[in-house]
Amino acid sequence: MSVERTVELEGHIIDSGRMQACFTAVMDLGGSFEVEAFDVGKHETDESYCRLRVTAADDVTLREILHELHQNGAVLEDPPNVTLEPAPEDRVVPSGFYSTTNHPTEVRYDDAWIPVEHIEMDCAIVLEPEGGPDGDPRAYTKVLNAIESGDLVATDESGIRVRPPERPRGSDGPFGFMQGGISAERPSESTIRQVADELVETAENGGTVLVVAGPAVIHSGAGEALARLVREGYVDALSAGNGFATHDLERSIYGTSLGMDVETLEHPRKGHKHHIWTISEVIREGGIAEAVEAGTVTEGVMYECVENDVPYVLAGSIRDDGPLPDTITDAVEAQNAIREQAREADLVLMLATLLHSVAVGNCLPSTTRTVCVDINPATVTQLLDRGSAQAIGMVTDIGTFVPTLADFVLESDAE
Amino acid sequence: MSVERTVELEGHIIDSGRMQACFTAVMDLGGSFEVEAFDVGKHETDESYCRLRVTAADDVTLREILHELHQNGAVLEDPPNVTLEPAPEDRVVPSGFYSTTNHPTEVRYDDAWIPVEHIEMDCAIVLEPEGGPDGDPRAYTKVLNAIESGDLVATDESGIRVRPPERPRGSDGPFGFMQGGISAERPSESTIRQVADELVETAENGGTVLVVAGPAVIHSGAGEALARLVREGYVDALSAGNGFATHDLERSIYGTSLGMDVETLEHPRKGHKHHIWTISEVIREGGIAEAVEAGTVTEGVMYECVENDVPYVLAGSIRDDGPLPDTITDAVEAQNAIREQAREADLVLMLATLLHSVAVGNCLPSTTRTVCVDINPATVTQLLDRGSAQAIGMVTDIGTFVPTLADFVLESDAE
Amino acid sequence: MSVERTVELEGHIIDSGRMQACFTAVMDLGGSFEVEAFDVGKHETDESYCRLRVTAADDVTLREILHELHQNGAVLEDPPNVTLEPAPEDRVVPSGFYSTTNHPTEVRYDDAWIPVEHIEMDCAIVLEPEGGPDGDPRAYTKVLNAIESGDLVATDESGIRVRPPERPRGSDGPFGFMQGGISAERPSESTIRQVADELVETAENGGTVLVVAGPAVIHSGAGEALARLVREGYVDALSAGNGFATHDLERSIYGTSLGMDVETLEHPRKGHKHHIWTISEVIREGGIAEAVEAGTVTEGVMYECVENDVPYVLAGSIRDDGPLPDTITDAVEAQNAIREQAREADLVLMLATLLHSVAVGNCLPSTTRTVCVDINPATVTQLLDRGSAQAIGMVTDIGTFVPTLADFVLESDAE
Amino acid sequence: MSVERTVELEGHIIDSGRMQACFTAVMDLGGSFEVEAFDVGKHETDESYCRLRVTAADDVTLREILHELHQNGAVLEDPPNVTLEPAPEDRVVPSGFYSTTNHPTEVRYDDAWIPVEHIEMDCAIVLEPEGGPDGDPRAYTKVLNAIESGDLVATDESGIRVRPPERPRGSDGPFGFMQGGISAERPSESTIRQVADELVETAENGGTVLVVAGPAVIHSGAGEALARLVREGYVDALSAGNGFATHDLERSIYGTSLGMDVETLEHPRKGHKHHIWTISEVIREGGIAEAVEAGTVTEGVMYECVENDVPYVLAGSIRDDGPLPDTITDAVEAQNAIREQAREADLVLMLATLLHSVAVGNCLPSTTRTVCVDINPATVTQLLDRGSAQAIGMVTDIGTFVPTLADFVLESDAE
Repeated sequence: MSVERTVELEGHIIDSGRMQACFTAVMDLGGSFEVEAFDVGKHETDESYCRLRVTAADDVTLREILHELHQNGAVLEDPPNVTLEPAPEDRVVPSGFYSTTNHPTEVRYDDAWIPVEHIEMDCAIVLEPEGGPDGDPRAYTKVLNAIESGDLVATDESGIRVRPPERPRGSDGPFGFMQGGISAERPSESTIRQVADELVETAENGGTVLVVAGPAVIHSGAGEALARLVREGYVDALSAGNGFATHDLERSIYGTSLGMDVETLEHPRKGHKHHIWTISEVIREGGIAEAVEAGTVTEGVMYECVENDVPYVLAGSIRDDGPLPDTITDAVEAQNAIREQAREADLVLMLATLLHSVAVGNCLPSTTRTVCVDINPATVTQLLDRGSAQAIGMVTDIGTFVPTLADFVLESDAE
Repeated sequence: MSVERTVELEGHIIDSGRMQACFTAVMDLGGSFEVEAFDVGKHETDESYCRLRVTAADDVTLREILHELHQNGAVLEDPPNVTLEPAPEDRVVPSGFYSTTNHPTEVRYDDAWIPVEHIEMDCAIVLEPEGGPDGDPRAYTKVLNAIESGDLVATDESGIRVRPPERPRGSDGPFGFMQGGISAERPSESTIRQVADELVETAENGGTVLVVAGPAVIHSGAGEALARLVREGYVDALSAGNGFATHDLERSIYGTSLGMDVETLEHPRKGHKHHIWTISEVIREGGIAEAVEAGTVTEGVMYECVENDVPYVLAGSIRDDGPLPDTITDAVEAQNAIREQAREADLVLMLATLLHSVAVGNCLPSTTRTVCVDINPATVTQLLDRGSAQAIGMVTDIGTFVPTLADFVLESDAE
Repeated sequence: MSVERTVELEGHIIDSGRMQACFTAVMDLGGSFEVEAFDVGKHETDESYCRLRVTAADDVTLREILHELHQNGAVLEDPPNVTLEPAPEDRVVPSGFYSTTNHPTEVRYDDAWIPVEHIEMDCAIVLEPEGGPDGDPRAYTKVLNAIESGDLVATDESGIRVRPPERPRGSDGPFGFMQGGISAERPSESTIRQVADELVETAENGGTVLVVAGPAVIHSGAGEALARLVREGYVDALSAGNGFATHDLERSIYGTSLGMDVETLEHPRKGHKHHIWTISEVIREGGIAEAVEAGTVTEGVMYECVENDVPYVLAGSIRDDGPLPDTITDAVEAQNAIREQAREADLVLMLATLLHSVAVGNCLPSTTRTVCVDINPATVTQLLDRGSAQAIGMVTDIGTFVPTLADFVLESDAE
Repeated sequence: MSVERTVELEGHIIDSGRMQACFTAVMDLGGSFEVEAFDVGKHETDESYCRLRVTAADDVTLREILHELHQNGAVLEDPPNVTLEPAPEDRVVPSGFYSTTNHPTEVRYDDAWIPVEHIEMDCAIVLEPEGGPDGDPRAYTKVLNAIESGDLVATDESGIRVRPPERPRGSDGPFGFMQGGISAERPSESTIRQVADELVETAENGGTVLVVAGPAVIHSGAGEALARLVREGYVDALSAGNGFATHDLERSIYGTSLGMDVETLEHPRKGHKHHIWTISEVIREGGIAEAVEAGTVTEGVMYECVENDVPYVLAGSIRDDGPLPDTITDAVEAQNAIREQAREADLVLMLATLLHSVAVGNCLPSTTRTVCVDINPATVTQLLDRGSAQAIGMVTDIGTFVPTLADFVLESDAE
């Protein structure tokens, strides 16, 4: 006794790979399909439409297949309204709650599609029937630990529509569409020039640039170049950790990073004390802004952030020394601060940090452009896999990347 | 006008590399030395002695040189008592406070050497003149954020003696002395057998084995083998994160890891919901132990920990989903819990996690034996560099390492 | 003045990604398309058909677009016969010669499609009008340095049809179709079990298994397990280098690999002489078979190859010591020997060698199943990128992989 | 019944680590030692002296220990003359022949120490009693395949003295002494500046700079910068392969590398034909110099080599397409050509190639300064392990390294 359902897809479903993904999912999961209708877009600008009847041996299999099709943007023929259930208590979602993708999403409520605000992966969707500005219904994401008793949570995918990103018509510039991998075999300087162009264009258009930076930016000697970009107004927010800030501050206070003089490369020794002394100095001052004000810190990335009112989030980690007073030690609180940054961002530069990049990436919708730079190809691959539709991945040395980027950006600025 | 000081070294200073390190440090930092006395140990079991007069152009250089010599165990001729200063307020150390190494350390107080308890890197040393059991003086480490106003903190290195580890006489077994690097060119199964022997021997001698495990242990299919080791009593404590526990619990509840059936390898798809549903189930139950009790979780590493009273610490991170109720979200609180684990450990197995391994490694003295296993050579190198004197680093696949280890351990047990 | 051409595609063109690739290529290269006809396969077993009119601003652009479409299996409407030109001299192809893909290919001659024999990437196609068994026309590949004056060489792609691989209907087993990447997040032992199943099945069906092995197989202690597989008849040919053979022979003659005892792990020292002594011993004997016959070599992979008449190719390299008398030092001659091996192979296991795997991979059609195993993810990615349609990539430790594989294979055999 | 021998060491045996290595070797191998005499150098410029009596349980163990001590520069008390045996036939060494290290070496003949010419690892030493210019004895290395029947070959280490490199007194500049590892945590641009200074200084002193380059130099867009360095006279010889030359020539002929426009990054597609067409063009012309002369090749690294009479060796490999007529396809012949280059070199830059770097490294004495640059840390580690006493290893992106290096070098030149 087989079971079946009919779904519809529309859009640039061939060149975005959605059609392929749907056909493949049915076959992989052991189902069968019949194409009931297929209207191919005649030109590259026309959208296509497909109606697909899916058959499976049992309900469980059918549900698994429909789940895959749903994620690729298929919608049930004659979709029902979304199913909502109240959360039984704080932080507890109803059983079978809908877990979000990072793609633009809509829920069907009262026979109309409502966009879900603040889309982000692995969240619940909460609907407020009269939560909108004019008492309209409103839907938005909530992470599990923010769920409050009584929240109306979406619990089935039938009334939910996902819009996976499609290849932009017209040039997509340097950002490859869903490339999902990085080639080590690309000309480095030309690629950096493209990133510089994006950065300049975003700045000129009043967009928000979020830089996510790891301690290697400082160790590798790129701190000064990043500080220049902050000073010149190309960075609108910084997301980093206690280690990044400490190394940057050490460079200002002692002229060293991990005890080594960044210019002369002298004294690259273990057991140096500058690192921990820097932390104790800043604790003594009461914080980074206070240390800048007191004249203890006179240059560097953190200095420029303070001087130029660029907001920063320093998220704590279990490997931190100290930590600095500015570091948010609670992971949930830090995630909330990062989430605010991520929602504002139009362009995200992830520089040599896996931990902070994943944390930021977790909060980004798939539509935000990102640039991931790391010397470890596994890190770049992992970040691109998390699913920005428009992303550049670059396996390079952060110590030459940032100075070259800054040169290209500021050259371009001078023109 | 040059300045000079005389220091003494004793022990197996040639084959431990301490002599070489001292000579090199003087030359690297631009000083000069004169060997005033050198009594070489005649046989391999005899210790050597060296008295060295160091000359430098100025006080700053001399201090830098003496700092390096100090770290290699050199002591000033006629060492003074340690200098102590009260902390001006909570979390604030006196200027110029002494920052610890991870080697056994003594402070000179009242003309006697007192061992520093709980030695750990990058801490302050606090001395309580009458803090010992019989009103004796007592010295111990404190991390910066634990400093309390009025604590007597060591502020100069002249009255402090470090004892860097030396090559053990007799065999040092598989643990290479200060090898500081790993060779990829070693026979894998023979190396795993040596780790198994260490594990069995530690267990038989009543030692404490701490396992630090990352999520890859579960993804790679090694969860069942680790669960066996817990069940059979070879694991005394577990240090992990929210991700490890979630994936392990998902495997028990849904039979999958990241949505893929671990046995059949079916459905390796993105967008699966098991991961986040697992978290919501455990939140609903109130915690892992409760989920075990309720019969929701019936196998796996966390299950065996609960059933066999093996204590675990789940340290939070900014990339966590959920998190599970058992996860300690505050980084400082989590570090304190990890510190307790680290102090008890006689043998530490670090399995496929950089973040948690560094966090644990930060709390370990250099004398604790460690085994670092990861598929990424950079991770293994970084962990070994942190300075256990007796360490095995192995670049291998955790998914074959743990099952092979468990087989060897349990075979050996059966004999 | 735009130019245009019409092409046709047929087959499982949606789920194999060919349609997507064609649409994308036109857009990327600045052309425009019109879908003149599209018959979608109604069920997963039905083939689809698409007729596409492509327009571009100029001939150069159109040619670039058609080249991409050609590579994805598109054929000109009413295709002409292939254009042939005689090679002007030995090793010199006519200008504009057609360079092959690694997919099954046909040339149109005398208004009929003729399959190209021995398809392999980056070759020329030579057509002999009466070269077939019955005086039929015959087409086959030739590498550039094998071209002879007067060979009739294909010089345009209009009369050539490429058949890119398609996703097999029915299960494709462990071999992901065109996955083009590897996930580190797969259960290791389950994956190895699937490779074992393939190996057993290939052997049972009388297929030919080619093992490509690097020196790390021996260093990592996996030599004995590979020798077992040879002895038990699961390896039909071996492709390796001078280093692999030397290390394997050293293990037999001295019990060491790079001077280290493979069992006890003793004496892992530089400067050992066993390696070079092994080579000099085998030179003295006259070759590997002679050394086996003389009783100098009594175990190991090379020993089993000699004893079980498993043919091997040892290809030379500029980093070789010696080399052994069996090593083919000329690269072109070695490639020819490898080419013979590659053409026979039904299943290729590439074990921990980039150089030899690339050399073998260069000679393989896209239809040969391959398994690529290496601890370096970049190596596995690079090998999978070279384009086998059915490939397993596995990032693991060869030192545990081969013994586990041998156990699974021989278990399965015992059943 | 134990056996014993007495050896002597002299030089900077403490800070070079030789004493430590000797003590450790005796203990590791199960022997025992007695220091019969030890005169420590009083100042950093004074040499030390040690006489060591080594005892072992049996002759085999003693021989192993003495082998290790020998490699670290220990010499038997009252050393005998070297033992010489004639090679029984071409390419066949006498049993027990001495296999060289890469350190400066002397043989004792007729009661005098004679330096061994052209020292290189894993060779035999041949002595010609009257082979010197004035009928003096002469000793030199020969690789195994160059041995001729009757050559007098050294067969025991007692009459041979190795001089392992010692830490230079005075600054050793950027080249760390025997650092044997690379730190990823160094400022990139400062390190590149040091390499630039070395390059300029070597050129100014009339030294010979050998560049070893892989294809990634071209893919990454660094070809033009390397071409500049050749044109400006900073490169005296080039060691590369068929792939490097082909990609460089493709860039000149088609403006692409692997089919992608290096400036605009357009058309990064598989299946491009430029690569193989480039090879066929150069074959047609008869070689690279002919292609330059004919005006087919008008820029790039190979062009500048031809125009500026910079000799190059293109060594063949089994993964080559073509190959180009200039490529030496026989591995032994190619090694001989590389050997000639290596012997002349004062400074070797190894740029993004493991295969060619190892081949060159195999021919270098430990005294030649080398710079190893690769994005893969395992490659850099492996190259440094091969034992140059003065080496810089840098994990960076070759695509930004070479342009930055060229800028620094030519800036410095302009001053």
